[in-house]
Amino acid sequence: MRQLTFWFEFASTYSYLSAMRIEDMAEKAGVELVWKPFLLGPIFKSQGWNTSPFNLYPAKGNYMVRDIERMAQGRGIPFRLPESFPQNSLHAARLSLVGLHEGWGSIFIKEVYKAEFASGQDISNAETLSSTLKAAGASPNKALESAQSTEIKKNLRANTEEAMALGIFGAPSFTTPSGELFWGDDRLEQALEWSGR
Amino acid sequence: MRQLTFWFEFASTYSYLSAMRIEDMAEKAGVELVWKPFLLGPIFKSQGWNTSPFNLYPAKGNYMVRDIERMAQGRGIPFRLPESFPQNSLHAARLSLVGLHEGWGSIFIKEVYKAEFASGQDISNAETLSSTLKAAGASPNKALESAQSTEIKKNLRANTEEAMALGIFGAPSFTTPSGELFWGDDRLEQALEWSGR
Repeated sequence: MRQLTFWFEFASTYSYLSAMRIEDMAEKAGVELVWKPFLLGPIFKSQGWNTSPFNLYPAKGNYMVRDIERMAQGRGIPFRLPESFPQNSLHAARLSLVGLHEGWGSIFIKEVYKAEFASGQDISNAETLSSTLKAAGASPNKALESAQSTEIKKNLRANTEEAMALGIFGAPSFTTPSGELFWGDDRLEQALEWSGR
Repeated sequence: MRQLTFWFEFASTYSYLSAMRIEDMAEKAGVELVWKPFLLGPIFKSQGWNTSPFNLYPAKGNYMVRDIERMAQGRGIPFRLPESFPQNSLHAARLSLVGLHEGWGSIFIKEVYKAEFASGQDISNAETLSSTLKAAGASPNKALESAQSTEIKKNLRANTEEAMALGIFGAPSFTTPSGELFWGDDRLEQALEWSGR
């Protein structure tokens, strides 16, 4: 079985583009998909950045917004940059790990991305998280409690450390069993092709 | 007539990928191509960088090499990172402006990129430049003299200033008459599509 690991960060606009299309594409290509949330914050910090490069380098940030607008428009999905960017994605990332264990992960992940980048909501907000959990068919109270467990916290830290060890420096990233790393939504097609090599 | 401006920097690996395919693609799409050399150095400096981000951020640099290897392999073109990177592209850029005025520009540009990223040669070297000029059908001595003219020096500075004013922060970049900016070889198809809008 061909396999592709999808490294995503909830604060990342380009991860939104991939999250909205990767399931269908993997299925069509006959590739098993592994969803892997991680945090870019510690990776950016190790590069001396205290926020998103889109904030540190305004020309890059301005470009990113227009680029995503065009890409989203071409794919028929909405896009709206939330007022506060980048958002705190810690709780959403932990919840996604709970969901991936319990079977409602991928629906929840897409609901979070839609809340954030289609509706411009704040995904660190408890109400937003509750309604995305409900939309994914999960019990908000139970899920929010599980997300605070030591196991889940360790799991997310381990993912971020693994990402760093693999040389991941941005999101989305894709890795194949043979050790190839791909960065960026525009490499998704190529990553799927390479997943069986 | 649809038009696309191709902003390239001779030190840029991803500009090599675009330079080797843009003419054919533009012709097929019925798009007039404007070649525009500029220097990334002053733009990087304004962002606080004293060298390529691929050197400042090793994870990004390692990734870039493998990414270009895969892309070049897929397109059937060779790739080799020169020992010294990024190279000093000043003289090649000025010479390309002479060539674009005199009609041998695009052949010279491709010859320089091949010398640098297919053969790993140093493009600031006078002999390398002479042999690429010859390969492009130009007279090396005459071209090297013209490249030192005040007009050509001003022209290159003006291109770099225009790039900055347009919000360009990397290479290759593509701009359309309607004011759209695209960054990266992976946006070339989309830029050609938008060139007529």
